[in-house]
Amino acid sequence: MAAVPSSDGPKVAGEERAFGGTVRKITHVAPSTNCEMTFNVFVPSKDALPKSGKFPVVFYLAGLTCTPENFTTKAGAFGVATKLGLALVMPDTSPRGDSVADDDGWDLGKGAGFYVTATQEPWAAHYNMYGYITKDLPEAVSSTCPELDISRASIMGHSMGGHGALITALKNPGRFAAVSAFAPICNPCTCPWGHKAFGAYFGDSESAKSEVWPQWDACELAKAYPSDAPELKMLVSQGTADGFLKDDQLQPEALKAAVESRGSEGANVAVTLCMETGYTHGYHFIATFVEQHLRFHAEAIGVDPESES
Amino acid sequence: MAAVPSSDGPKVAGEERAFGGTVRKITHVAPSTNCEMTFNVFVPSKDALPKSGKFPVVFYLAGLTCTPENFTTKAGAFGVATKLGLALVMPDTSPRGDSVADDDGWDLGKGAGFYVTATQEPWAAHYNMYGYITKDLPEAVSSTCPELDISRASIMGHSMGGHGALITALKNPGRFAAVSAFAPICNPCTCPWGHKAFGAYFGDSESAKSEVWPQWDACELAKAYPSDAPELKMLVSQGTADGFLKDDQLQPEALKAAVESRGSEGANVAVTLCMETGYTHGYHFIATFVEQHLRFHAEAIGVDPESES
Repeated sequence: MAAVPSSDGPKVAGEERAFGGTVRKITHVAPSTNCEMTFNVFVPSKDALPKSGKFPVVFYLAGLTCTPENFTTKAGAFGVATKLGLALVMPDTSPRGDSVADDDGWDLGKGAGFYVTATQEPWAAHYNMYGYITKDLPEAVSSTCPELDISRASIMGHSMGGHGALITALKNPGRFAAVSAFAPICNPCTCPWGHKAFGAYFGDSESAKSEVWPQWDACELAKAYPSDAPELKMLVSQGTADGFLKDDQLQPEALKAAVESRGSEGANVAVTLCMETGYTHGYHFIATFVEQHLRFHAEAIGVDPESES
Repeated sequence: MAAVPSSDGPKVAGEERAFGGTVRKITHVAPSTNCEMTFNVFVPSKDALPKSGKFPVVFYLAGLTCTPENFTTKAGAFGVATKLGLALVMPDTSPRGDSVADDDGWDLGKGAGFYVTATQEPWAAHYNMYGYITKDLPEAVSSTCPELDISRASIMGHSMGGHGALITALKNPGRFAAVSAFAPICNPCTCPWGHKAFGAYFGDSESAKSEVWPQWDACELAKAYPSDAPELKMLVSQGTADGFLKDDQLQPEALKAAVESRGSEGANVAVTLCMETGYTHGYHFIATFVEQHLRFHAEAIGVDPESES
């Protein structure tokens, strides 16, 4: 399944059968990141099609160092997605290619786009994963996957991608039925990964820290979410044996505190935090709880229960 | 989870939580292969423990180029194994280490042990994966996993590991409750992979071909399986879009023909061949059908149905 480079629209570069449906690999040149991007889509079997005639979509944003392949191959999600009649869209974690700036560290640059819009050089030329996720990606999905109804969408992610899912949902009230995250970076303004990435992508002047960084931090966005905006339910799962939790990279309790600080007038944002004893940061953790998360999204989307097989 | 080298018995080198149970990584120096080996075990949650008090075991033998990690991370099997109360044992595919002979090709040497006992140099010193699978591995499992009842076992595999599972079950009547395989190499005596591997491991003299090779070929073993031996049920799943099927590497119809040639007196060997439209050779295929295979093994083992959650 070699990728087919394209300059005139998304192309299906490969398909593989799974659970009676299809894993579709798509390549396209994305205006936001100004480079060729690759993503995977799982389209369930036609037998799982809801009465509405199209599959609702759950976006999955992956973590540091990952590609579209990690969740595709390791999460064990396709069986459950088929039962629930959900399509899954799995994008990359950064711009790619020889012309794209990079860093020697695995937590900055390629594989570490943080789902933001970078303003500083050398990053600003390509590191606009936020624009990619919110505009280019859904457009490419719509044009290559007619079986999907992109207007019925929900979003989830892991670690850096959990951060990405949370901020994308919080910045776009009403666009996603719900948001969930496995071990998300909840408060990048106050953790080492966030300091490094935001310092590079936005600069680390005092004005950048006070004015720009908070626009990309789930805790700050949760506090500022308009009280008259559509309800947003957040499900967060966190393993207690996760080394990054102990290193204060994740801080789920900060997200919970941010939501609680909204008080009764801000009850249109809710978070359920599940601390899972003994689980680490990897895909065994995700595989264990992916059914719980997909059922949460199916309920939020309002998937026709008759589609369950 | 760095491996802890050991010269005096199996060691638990790492543990990770999954589906309420544990993925245990074990290292040991194996007499059969005369080198340090690594394998993984999935021990389900105690909540899934059968009334008998110990988990029955399904061995999974992986294919060419694989390690214990492929099935562990990509098969999506642990949720189903938990439901059925089955432990899973996932060994490596060859001896390993600097002193072990290798070949430039990916289909011979390291990652390609073919689950045989090599008689030719330079292979004979370490390439005794058959002894490893039938003796060293179960002993190491017993000594490190007291939750498992190794006497209640079944065996499965993929591709080269499907061949390994089939020959191991056929050569040991009554030892395994059943055998199943995804896209197995059914007739290595007559396919390019088998010619290369058997020619290297056993030599390619006419006497080797006529006397030794058939002892390691599932079709030949199926024909010769004693008619008074315990019944052996075989389940084989094969994707129709598998490129290796088209290349005549797999030949499931030869296995079916071998079983049918036994006639009514040889009805103690049975094969169910499931041709699955559109599936390829990879782990999406395995993940799709692993539940069917594990349920087949659970039934053959006679797993206490009350253990199903």
